[in-house]
Amino acid sequence: MPEGARAGAADLRTLRWEIEEFNTEYAAVLDAGRVADWPDFFTEDAIYRITGRENWDAKLPVGLIYCEGMGMLRDRALAISKTTMFAPRYLLHQIGNTRVHSVDAAGIVAAEANYALFETLVDERTTLQQVGRYHDRFVRAGGRLRLKERHCVYDSVIIDTALIYPV
Amino acid sequence: MPEGARAGAADLRTLRWEIEEFNTEYAAVLDAGRVADWPDFFTEDAIYRITGRENWDAKLPVGLIYCEGMGMLRDRALAISKTTMFAPRYLLHQIGNTRVHSVDAAGIVAAEANYALFETLVDERTTLQQVGRYHDRFVRAGGRLRLKERHCVYDSVIIDTALIYPV
Amino acid sequence: MPEGARAGAADLRTLRWEIEEFNTEYAAVLDAGRVADWPDFFTEDAIYRITGRENWDAKLPVGLIYCEGMGMLRDRALAISKTTMFAPRYLLHQIGNTRVHSVDAAGIVAAEANYALFETLVDERTTLQQVGRYHDRFVRAGGRLRLKERHCVYDSVIIDTALIYPV
Repeated sequence: MPEGARAGAADLRTLRWEIEEFNTEYAAVLDAGRVADWPDFFTEDAIYRITGRENWDAKLPVGLIYCEGMGMLRDRALAISKTTMFAPRYLLHQIGNTRVHSVDAAGIVAAEANYALFETLVDERTTLQQVGRYHDRFVRAGGRLRLKERHCVYDSVIIDTALIYPV
Repeated sequence: MPEGARAGAADLRTLRWEIEEFNTEYAAVLDAGRVADWPDFFTEDAIYRITGRENWDAKLPVGLIYCEGMGMLRDRALAISKTTMFAPRYLLHQIGNTRVHSVDAAGIVAAEANYALFETLVDERTTLQQVGRYHDRFVRAGGRLRLKERHCVYDSVIIDTALIYPV
Repeated sequence: MPEGARAGAADLRTLRWEIEEFNTEYAAVLDAGRVADWPDFFTEDAIYRITGRENWDAKLPVGLIYCEGMGMLRDRALAISKTTMFAPRYLLHQIGNTRVHSVDAAGIVAAEANYALFETLVDERTTLQQVGRYHDRFVRAGGRLRLKERHCVYDSVIIDTALIYPV
């Protein structure tokens, strides 16, 4: 789509498919424990945040996790991959309800999607670790979409305090 | 598609995309607590029902909730928005497995989709409030799809007895 | 797509839609308890397996359930349909995050999808029976897709030991 063009319904639908595929790859990387590859989904100046719905609705800047820029994303990924996981667990993201809101004159795509994150600890039943919504801004860079902003807004007020892994 | 035309596979797929987008908006409105906007997804003569799978399979007309026509839908929405919510909670719908069965000569689209409804009460862990299936009939009115019938058929036999909010 | 052709991004996306529709029908058949129709989703020489993620990651051949060929699939379906279900229950699959990896020269499509399987026993709350991922190989036979291989790899380490129903 040329710069400055207004996105029509057909463009938004095509973007939805592309974002669905993006999110499927994103989830697969995290679910496989490939956290070192996680920063590749973001732009150099990206913002990544995990915050509660109460904070989000109140427009509070604070959150559980906040990264600004590739350096912080890579630091985070490195720290996690070096940490002996406190307790072995499997994660599985189910992402759906993808909505594309708009594409602005600069080509920034505003979108949302719901996620359910299922967690399985050894010798325990699978539980809902958290459910929430991604509030995203995508840009096209190097021929593919990347996240300029991802705000993971969780409904779950009580979550595992040991959460260090990206969502 | 012209009236009376038989829908081919390509038409059914295009309808699937449209219904996915409809359901995503529907869920977003409910999840945001915008219950006053909920009747807009329906036609003037719409039927809305929440019922158990046992009742549905037995073709019993009864259900937990039954609305017939825009008046009853609006009454319900108004009653809820005026009620101080008994206990604050967040809801999140995950809708998937969308199937379009047919389009009849009158343009009525028969479709289904699965839903999982996650509920989070303050200071509690997120739980599955209910899972179930929408059995829908859509019509095109004013250039967009609207529900002529939505039967929410839940698997969950034990659900919060305080359920008053639409699904 | 002609034999030997390399699948482009557009072909993979079209396949994704087709596989989403396949999986939606597959889930609907199982969720409706129509287990006798379940073998129809497979080829004559199909492999069907349910195994844990630990086994899968270690490339162990063993699993909870293993069927090779239509005979074993039909035997399994027959055994289940003849068994008085130990405890009546409703099942609901939510399938998402569908990924199409490749189409090889012989037309075999390698794909994956995540599933969440919700189970509801009479007079109990709905629970997560298991979450996991389908690792699939599809072929086109008789004008439609069929499974040549489906490996259901569950995250859930503790699952109902009474599990006999296909996933």
